Amino acid sequence: MKEISNLLNYRKDVKVIDATMRDGGLVNDFRFTDEFVHDLYLANIRAGVDYMEFGYKADKELFDVNKFGKWKFCNEEDMRAIVGENNTDLKLAIMADVGRCNYKTDILDRSESVIDLIRVATYLHQMPTAIDMIEDAKKKGYEVSCNIMAISTAQEGDVKAALDMLMQSPVDVIYIVDSFGSMYPEQMQRLASLYVEYAEKFGKKVGIHAHNNQQLAFANTIEAVGDGVDWLDATYSGMGRGAGNCAMELLLGFLKNPKYNIYHVIQFIDRHMTKLREEGVQWGYDLQYLMTGLLNQHPRTAIAFTNEHRKDYSEFYREVVAMDL
Amino acid sequence: MKEISNLLNYRKDVKVIDATMRDGGLVNDFRFTDEFVHDLYLANIRAGVDYMEFGYKADKELFDVNKFGKWKFCNEEDMRAIVGENNTDLKLAIMADVGRCNYKTDILDRSESVIDLIRVATYLHQMPTAIDMIEDAKKKGYEVSCNIMAISTAQEGDVKAALDMLMQSPVDVIYIVDSFGSMYPEQMQRLASLYVEYAEKFGKKVGIHAHNNQQLAFANTIEAVGDGVDWLDATYSGMGRGAGNCAMELLLGFLKNPKYNIYHVIQFIDRHMTKLREEGVQWGYDLQYLMTGLLNQHPRTAIAFTNEHRKDYSEFYREVVAMDL
Repeated sequence: MKEISNLLNYRKDVKVIDATMRDGGLVNDFRFTDEFVHDLYLANIRAGVDYMEFGYKADKELFDVNKFGKWKFCNEEDMRAIVGENNTDLKLAIMADVGRCNYKTDILDRSESVIDLIRVATYLHQMPTAIDMIEDAKKKGYEVSCNIMAISTAQEGDVKAALDMLMQSPVDVIYIVDSFGSMYPEQMQRLASLYVEYAEKFGKKVGIHAHNNQQLAFANTIEAVGDGVDWLDATYSGMGRGAGNCAMELLLGFLKNPKYNIYHVIQFIDRHMTKLREEGVQWGYDLQYLMTGLLNQHPRTAIAFTNEHRKDYSEFYREVVAMDL
Repeated sequence: MKEISNLLNYRKDVKVIDATMRDGGLVNDFRFTDEFVHDLYLANIRAGVDYMEFGYKADKELFDVNKFGKWKFCNEEDMRAIVGENNTDLKLAIMADVGRCNYKTDILDRSESVIDLIRVATYLHQMPTAIDMIEDAKKKGYEVSCNIMAISTAQEGDVKAALDMLMQSPVDVIYIVDSFGSMYPEQMQRLASLYVEYAEKFGKKVGIHAHNNQQLAFANTIEAVGDGVDWLDATYSGMGRGAGNCAMELLLGFLKNPKYNIYHVIQFIDRHMTKLREEGVQWGYDLQYLMTGLLNQHPRTAIAFTNEHRKDYSEFYREVVAMDL
């Protein structure tokens, strides 16, 4: 049934994308130390990770540079301070949100940048701008992917319309994104076969970005691998907004391509992730995220519950059920 | 592909078994307060759980009654102190380990007991004694299930031989047990179809007991449901040995039978499970369990790592990889 169904072999087209600084940055306002970033860069190279996402290219007119760490903006000089000319096999990525990125000026020409991949993130209702961003990035010489967010609350017809638009665009990779962590593997399988059907016809690839609200981020990711999805997002220790993401250590433990090496991931976690948690940075599965996931809601209420150090889960359940009406 | 593939309907044959006190008892030596046990009993009734496992019937000649809480032994009078005559829809279960249970004398006749279900746990090499225990319990009037443990390290031929023996026995339910938390959903699917094929021919049911070493306990359980497995073990907050089990709150969130009600699970967790963790009782996913799961090893080294409050994951990785040779 699965393309890699014996679980013993591997598919060379699979790519692993480390999104620790981007999705993880959402829980510490992108305030990573230079030592953290440099060590993560080295760990990714040694672990055989294919792409490393450094953060966002956020619009400085919309976001105050004094209120966030530098990786919300990913200035070219800040990236070069870490990677130099990046003469390695690890490719570099940043995310550009529709409506939050001054892409025409802030994304340089590929020849002036160490960035390889621009990841455009969009809601369904923003597709025309997303397409303009994709075309802009492609014209500048980049690889380009597109995340359509919050599809678990979208109608299938709208998703198909968006896929039609993307197929006519120069985008290289389209992402299935389980923004609310509400999907089960069986639903992931259905979406994967829809996305793969479109992508195969037009020579594009499909990716997955999962959230761990129901402890299914890793399970949904390996379900997708079996369904022909090639681009896999993961983060060290699952660090990411709310319940976090598919954990890099789980994913590299599963993938059988000999280029991947889990040991360097474990070593980085030893050195940095335990410390982050001790400093009070919070993410990962907990009941409040399960509840918003189950109800297919944005996790913002659960994140507020976490930030207020609340533990009264049953009161929170009453609140979110009431909100669901 | 799946029997409940639209995810919106439910299968009436599905049963939920709360194993919190039994598998969870392994991490606190079965020292639950009477208040905890009584509240758990009420929560299970209100949540619509089908069976509640109280603990083990351990041999008092092998295990010192002063070194464990009473639920390692599940004396009839201790159970009755909680449940009275148990005039409820919730059925009661205990586990009897091959080689660790004086079953002929310690398991009373069903007419003298509030217990409904005897769960026999066995390794493959102990099958003849397991069969004797099954026959003994059946003769006494109980429902009987059998867990064949550690099958992820067994040869398929041996598993089939054990299934042949069980099919000739009066056992009601045979369990797929992922003792080391090493299995992926795709492997679970293969095992489920093997077990279900045997069971259907002989009018028996199949169950699943999963461990969370790779954050797949819930994912493997719902994979199994889709493959025709009906008896589902879960524990509140996933409490159980090492990385713990499939979490009851995740499972009841997924199951669509209107008899189940997640709210009472959340309320119990509010009242008791957060406190248990604050008192220092430890379980749940962590890197050391991922490693033993990946290497298909017994988690005992990972449990020792936890108990020693070690955090040097990369050193532990070197240790278990060396051990794997």
